[in-house]
Amino acid sequence: MTSSNKYRTERDTMGKILVPSRAYYGPQTQRALENFQISGLQLPRRFIKAQGTIKASAASVNMELGMLSKEMGKAIIEASEEVIDGVWDDHFVVDVYQAGAGTSQNMNANEIIAHRASELISGSFTSNVVHANDHVNMSQSTNDTFPAALHIAAVEELNHRLLPAINQLQKELEWKSNEFMPILKSGRTHLHDAVPIRLGQEFSGYAGTIESAYHQIETTLDDLYEIGLGGNAVGTLINTHPDYPEKVITEICKRTEAPFRAPASMFSYMQNRNAAIKTMLAMKELAIHLIKITSDLRLLASGPRTGLTEITLPPVQPGSTIMPGKVNPAILEMTHMVCCQVIGYETALATAGIASQLEINVMMPVIAHSVLESIGLLSNAIPALSEKCITGIQANESKCTNLMESSLALVTGLSPILGYDLASQIGIEADEKNSSIKEVLQEKGLLSEKIEKAIDPRGMV
Amino acid sequence: MTSSNKYRTERDTMGKILVPSRAYYGPQTQRALENFQISGLQLPRRFIKAQGTIKASAASVNMELGMLSKEMGKAIIEASEEVIDGVWDDHFVVDVYQAGAGTSQNMNANEIIAHRASELISGSFTSNVVHANDHVNMSQSTNDTFPAALHIAAVEELNHRLLPAINQLQKELEWKSNEFMPILKSGRTHLHDAVPIRLGQEFSGYAGTIESAYHQIETTLDDLYEIGLGGNAVGTLINTHPDYPEKVITEICKRTEAPFRAPASMFSYMQNRNAAIKTMLAMKELAIHLIKITSDLRLLASGPRTGLTEITLPPVQPGSTIMPGKVNPAILEMTHMVCCQVIGYETALATAGIASQLEINVMMPVIAHSVLESIGLLSNAIPALSEKCITGIQANESKCTNLMESSLALVTGLSPILGYDLASQIGIEADEKNSSIKEVLQEKGLLSEKIEKAIDPRGMV
Amino acid sequence: MTSSNKYRTERDTMGKILVPSRAYYGPQTQRALENFQISGLQLPRRFIKAQGTIKASAASVNMELGMLSKEMGKAIIEASEEVIDGVWDDHFVVDVYQAGAGTSQNMNANEIIAHRASELISGSFTSNVVHANDHVNMSQSTNDTFPAALHIAAVEELNHRLLPAINQLQKELEWKSNEFMPILKSGRTHLHDAVPIRLGQEFSGYAGTIESAYHQIETTLDDLYEIGLGGNAVGTLINTHPDYPEKVITEICKRTEAPFRAPASMFSYMQNRNAAIKTMLAMKELAIHLIKITSDLRLLASGPRTGLTEITLPPVQPGSTIMPGKVNPAILEMTHMVCCQVIGYETALATAGIASQLEINVMMPVIAHSVLESIGLLSNAIPALSEKCITGIQANESKCTNLMESSLALVTGLSPILGYDLASQIGIEADEKNSSIKEVLQEKGLLSEKIEKAIDPRGMV
Amino acid sequence: MTSSNKYRTERDTMGKILVPSRAYYGPQTQRALENFQISGLQLPRRFIKAQGTIKASAASVNMELGMLSKEMGKAIIEASEEVIDGVWDDHFVVDVYQAGAGTSQNMNANEIIAHRASELISGSFTSNVVHANDHVNMSQSTNDTFPAALHIAAVEELNHRLLPAINQLQKELEWKSNEFMPILKSGRTHLHDAVPIRLGQEFSGYAGTIESAYHQIETTLDDLYEIGLGGNAVGTLINTHPDYPEKVITEICKRTEAPFRAPASMFSYMQNRNAAIKTMLAMKELAIHLIKITSDLRLLASGPRTGLTEITLPPVQPGSTIMPGKVNPAILEMTHMVCCQVIGYETALATAGIASQLEINVMMPVIAHSVLESIGLLSNAIPALSEKCITGIQANESKCTNLMESSLALVTGLSPILGYDLASQIGIEADEKNSSIKEVLQEKGLLSEKIEKAIDPRGMV
Repeated sequence: MTSSNKYRTERDTMGKILVPSRAYYGPQTQRALENFQISGLQLPRRFIKAQGTIKASAASVNMELGMLSKEMGKAIIEASEEVIDGVWDDHFVVDVYQAGAGTSQNMNANEIIAHRASELISGSFTSNVVHANDHVNMSQSTNDTFPAALHIAAVEELNHRLLPAINQLQKELEWKSNEFMPILKSGRTHLHDAVPIRLGQEFSGYAGTIESAYHQIETTLDDLYEIGLGGNAVGTLINTHPDYPEKVITEICKRTEAPFRAPASMFSYMQNRNAAIKTMLAMKELAIHLIKITSDLRLLASGPRTGLTEITLPPVQPGSTIMPGKVNPAILEMTHMVCCQVIGYETALATAGIASQLEINVMMPVIAHSVLESIGLLSNAIPALSEKCITGIQANESKCTNLMESSLALVTGLSPILGYDLASQIGIEADEKNSSIKEVLQEKGLLSEKIEKAIDPRGMV
Repeated sequence: MTSSNKYRTERDTMGKILVPSRAYYGPQTQRALENFQISGLQLPRRFIKAQGTIKASAASVNMELGMLSKEMGKAIIEASEEVIDGVWDDHFVVDVYQAGAGTSQNMNANEIIAHRASELISGSFTSNVVHANDHVNMSQSTNDTFPAALHIAAVEELNHRLLPAINQLQKELEWKSNEFMPILKSGRTHLHDAVPIRLGQEFSGYAGTIESAYHQIETTLDDLYEIGLGGNAVGTLINTHPDYPEKVITEICKRTEAPFRAPASMFSYMQNRNAAIKTMLAMKELAIHLIKITSDLRLLASGPRTGLTEITLPPVQPGSTIMPGKVNPAILEMTHMVCCQVIGYETALATAGIASQLEINVMMPVIAHSVLESIGLLSNAIPALSEKCITGIQANESKCTNLMESSLALVTGLSPILGYDLASQIGIEADEKNSSIKEVLQEKGLLSEKIEKAIDPRGMV
Repeated sequence: MTSSNKYRTERDTMGKILVPSRAYYGPQTQRALENFQISGLQLPRRFIKAQGTIKASAASVNMELGMLSKEMGKAIIEASEEVIDGVWDDHFVVDVYQAGAGTSQNMNANEIIAHRASELISGSFTSNVVHANDHVNMSQSTNDTFPAALHIAAVEELNHRLLPAINQLQKELEWKSNEFMPILKSGRTHLHDAVPIRLGQEFSGYAGTIESAYHQIETTLDDLYEIGLGGNAVGTLINTHPDYPEKVITEICKRTEAPFRAPASMFSYMQNRNAAIKTMLAMKELAIHLIKITSDLRLLASGPRTGLTEITLPPVQPGSTIMPGKVNPAILEMTHMVCCQVIGYETALATAGIASQLEINVMMPVIAHSVLESIGLLSNAIPALSEKCITGIQANESKCTNLMESSLALVTGLSPILGYDLASQIGIEADEKNSSIKEVLQEKGLLSEKIEKAIDPRGMV
Repeated sequence: MTSSNKYRTERDTMGKILVPSRAYYGPQTQRALENFQISGLQLPRRFIKAQGTIKASAASVNMELGMLSKEMGKAIIEASEEVIDGVWDDHFVVDVYQAGAGTSQNMNANEIIAHRASELISGSFTSNVVHANDHVNMSQSTNDTFPAALHIAAVEELNHRLLPAINQLQKELEWKSNEFMPILKSGRTHLHDAVPIRLGQEFSGYAGTIESAYHQIETTLDDLYEIGLGGNAVGTLINTHPDYPEKVITEICKRTEAPFRAPASMFSYMQNRNAAIKTMLAMKELAIHLIKITSDLRLLASGPRTGLTEITLPPVQPGSTIMPGKVNPAILEMTHMVCCQVIGYETALATAGIASQLEINVMMPVIAHSVLESIGLLSNAIPALSEKCITGIQANESKCTNLMESSLALVTGLSPILGYDLASQIGIEADEKNSSIKEVLQEKGLLSEKIEKAIDPRGMV
């Protein structure tokens, strides 16, 4: 190709601009490309798919309402469905860090679809038969469609990836809880000897916590189902057919098989990203708990010789470049790192969330990025955690038993019989003399059948 | 009082210690006092009240189950009820930053009640007839009662203070929304001229957002209703009568008139502070939105001469020590600052939340402090916001009208008729010539009745 | 006192208001009291002292420059010095969460000093001989004095409390490092067996990290020394004698014995709280490291029977209300909680920091609160950490030795001789057979003097 | 290629594994690839370059010290230099979220270099003549080289990209400050009318703040220059020639032309990522200030008809898909979003930073990612801000003048003459009557030459 035909000239309201000849995007995308060379990252596949879904649905309704000709409507729908299918992903080129509200992202979709629809009608994708704003973006604004695309993408990712992943993790933890229920071990509070507990009980706590986090995330779906399509620039439905909002949401529901609905408050929907914030906060909650659980497992698996070694993790790869034979809890560490990042994304989103001004929040791209990346990271990390770590954990029963039987906290069983003060003395004496509780009781002549039963760990769990 | 009788000698498992003669607390509280001179702050009244409620309920059930003599049980209940009533608040002296898990806080309650119950029985509060651990703390541990006290205190504060305050704010915003619905004004997106909107619509967005935040906080109540009393040290009900857990929760429900219940997962309850985290995250969400709303109101009220001045806030105090006559949006700024602090408390709590290790999280005092302080700050700030600011806001209708009519975004109404590109040209020309949209249309000979109607802001909202 | 004389009537630019008869504060403080019943907290003693220092210095310079009569100047100085000495602390009643920028806080000082100075001149504190704005606040604004008071208070607290406390901690850690240098133990990376290390080397790392954090905080002093007195409302020195800025800073230096100076950029000083942010971020860095160190110490001290128990912490109080004889790492946990809170304050401050708008940041009270509370918490917690914990730590040498000798990581010494792959095989075999490295080498007939030396931990540190 | 030769079999200490035939990485990288399909992101080019630099330097020194044969040393150096030059970037495939400490990342480099060096020696890259651990990783561990690579990469990015970018921004702001110094305008505090200020003074504040942030970041270089090469697994120099540390750092300095040095405390360097934390916190400080500045500029440029419009930003692209002719402050919004993300990365890093345990922090990959991504985002966003926004800002002098002259805060000039109370009355009356200050003075017969001069804004700046 000669230099002269590498680019074509396009024009928008700011004038002429050169666009790569084969690019299906247009002048506004080109300007965004030139303005924003920031991260090299784009919004993800699911977001683009959701944009395509909205464009197809809008065209369908506009056509039905007589706002758009059949020919144009059908062409836009076909082009949009190609976007849904990922055909044009390479032409979505705008950086995550772009114009506030995501105008460039919306225009990227509008321009690709306009060009492609023009091609479907006229045979030439540069014929401009279909207009990016007047036709593809008809009845829409960035302000109502960008958050709708975010909600649609997040709902799909949550329903099909993250929630099932969390559910699987919960199930794995429950199975392990059942498997480990016979294993008695010493509890530890403040990392100090505490009364006995079952390894399975510890895991039941993990499972219960994950279940609680699951429900919190699931609850946010109801908020994500609110999409204010038709709200347009500021929520007033300007330049929109009065029947459009209801019809377009019905169309979205059909295409996504999800129960989207109009927002309870259209102006709240325009001003803030409530649902995104709720979802992000729920993921932060999950991250907090995953850090606890993975840290616990690393602690219980510490060793093999110099740690607690109550459990053994399945090895997944050599652990050290210098210490031969070392195996590290790599999957747990990876999960912990992912959680650090998710917690970071929550901060990014909250910082963006407070920047809403008047009719809209113009930090939408970074909000979308934070939520969708967090969902993505967790959706990938959690199955690895379940499948490459949790499921293969083995209990070291003898280690558990030995530690438990040595624990000074067994003295707790004596409290109801001897009282807290005398029991304390016995515990402290055992510590000082490096003896067992039983030995001290024997020395003191306190050992009876009843007493022996009282300090039997098997009776304490 | 001579120096010799200013202090009495008490003894715990670590030995003798001097305690102020008149203090109803005992040796462990005294050690905590000496160990922790950190913030000068204590956990709040409602927390102490909840501790008293738990102690009274436990004694009642222990007595009923024959674990505790009637005489002792009744004395402990009476003493605990005095704690509930605030009689002994001055003797709760342990710093917020204390032993992990709140052992010192629990002993502070145990020791006060033991001394007072001893006094009720024997006439002398130092008679040690009632034992702080064996009797007052019977069937309990810090690990199960501290979080239960937090839940009980939080529930009371949420139900009686924060949720009503948020509800009142929502109502005020709705009233204002109705009052301001006739006021047309220019919308602003990206702080730039956008299509018209009603001032009442803006306020309806604020009301809708607050309603959404209200529901998020309300939802967390269900988690706070879970209290794992009887779980004891690690969740295994050690040293506890099997009927105790159910009975004690029933007693708590009776005393608090709230539907507390046993946790779905006792071990999750012991390990983590799920419910506290959920409540805190929900308050962060509220804080994010309050910052947006109060920032908006400050922007709309900016002026009186050099700002937007679309609304006027009720003056509450002189605003400047140097600029005479200045009045500032003090209530809004105060609310914004409270929200900064609440967001800070969420970080503190999350940082504490990830520090859970094995059977318990030993950061409980700072978790309780963060949640309860946040509830308290918001419960005080929001009514001030409603009553001293929102309710007295006045719209400056003429300013709203003038700005709206000058807005270049009126050109949006032309898009469906003239197309986006020509409409853009008109808008840009009006900007460059400092003309109105109408003037440019006239110059271009495009003004018709239909066109005039299309750019009439009254038709756009 | 009859009800009629419990209050006196005062007047400000908003009209009449009742003030408690004996209060030395005046109408604007009274309005703030009524407007802001939020936290029950006030800015701390050192902040009030700094306010007094500024008021005294300003009066002194105004008098010298002939702006203020000698009689009035002297009275204001005397009253301000009483504020410095804490005489009027009970009359500083404005809540931390108050008018943005701290106008109420400034007026609280102005009004107390005006009343007291009036009394010194006329014998009656309500004679209004001295005017709060015209005389006490002469050449000042809240906008330049509030941040100056923050800087002065922070400098005093850092120099006299926090930095010495950190320095003491570093010294304690260094002493322990020296004491523990002979103790060999197993290193642990990923909580798994790693090559040997000296306990003293671990502590040298702690000391080195604390030293690094010390320098970071110390460095921020240079920024805190910038105080823009005379900048007044927006930085333009309005209503101020041209010689005032230099002279008043000289006077402040004399009174505080600290090298304060004019800011490099007056308008940056007015717009932002750079120095406060830097100080807060440096404290966050310290908090991050303190969490690591205190967590490590809790891990190394875990036990006494079911943990690592390589060190023993000095007991400070009984650890459990239910488990007799239990002793917990209470001081370490308290320190960790303080760090959670400091990290929370940094978030609060950052959230406030981004809210600066145009000429000033109106979140100053919460900024001051966050910085000063953080300094205060750390200044109290760190000496407790040094004195009640670090200094009393004892090494359990035999536990260290036993664990080290069992460590599989000793195989690392074989790498340079046998290569990584064969060394790995040996390590893995030892793990599987539950043998020592030496035993496996012997079995394989690989044990030679050279090999034996290579796996001797004493040669590895 | 037939299926049978698409893969080759490699072997590590965990057994056999299939590796793509043409991949220069080896079995451990392959395992990491399979274990970690999380984000799709890798550590950036500069990090890989730094890894190559370390490998080349280590080989050079090992060769010099006689630990490595000349043939092997030279081959490793040549292969490493190819890594430095980016030849093997496509073979660096490990996900950011990987094994803690970055073992997989280190092995990725070791394996590529071993294969390539083997090829250089034997002609076959799979000949395994050079061993990834024994030769390429000689005298190294992940634990000392990963943080060193982070420091080297960060130093290069800071010195060559971020610091120059910040410097350029500061210069642009200073130029604008000079250009705008003649423009008088109304100051605004609390968004309310305040005394006059020069537009250039506002910009001087921005420049001053950026300068302060520049120095904070620059200061962290000194900490980044500390690299603990030779520290190896836990800081004890195990399996390392005693002369290695000094020599290898000298070699690094030569290759990077930067003054790296051994850490003041080797064990602090091993345990924590102090320098990374300091750098990240300094970038957070910058981000806080950039949010303030970009928010201010958006506010000053708000309009064109319904805002303040004291300045006009250079248009970079059309602003709305629905509102024709709209132009938004896209570059400012993009910068604000980048800052949200940087603040989020700081949270991620802090959350990772507190997770250090004993000898090392195993959250290193997410720490490196956070720091390097933040540097990268800011290094790209800031020049866009300077060049596409700041440099083209125009002042709207007449708008500035008109607003200033209408400001009620001009009454401040009357305070020294009439006193605060009377001046207040005049201001309040002007507000109520919607008059100018001058008009009220005239009405009251107070207008004199002196008074007129006192309220002349030109005399106030």
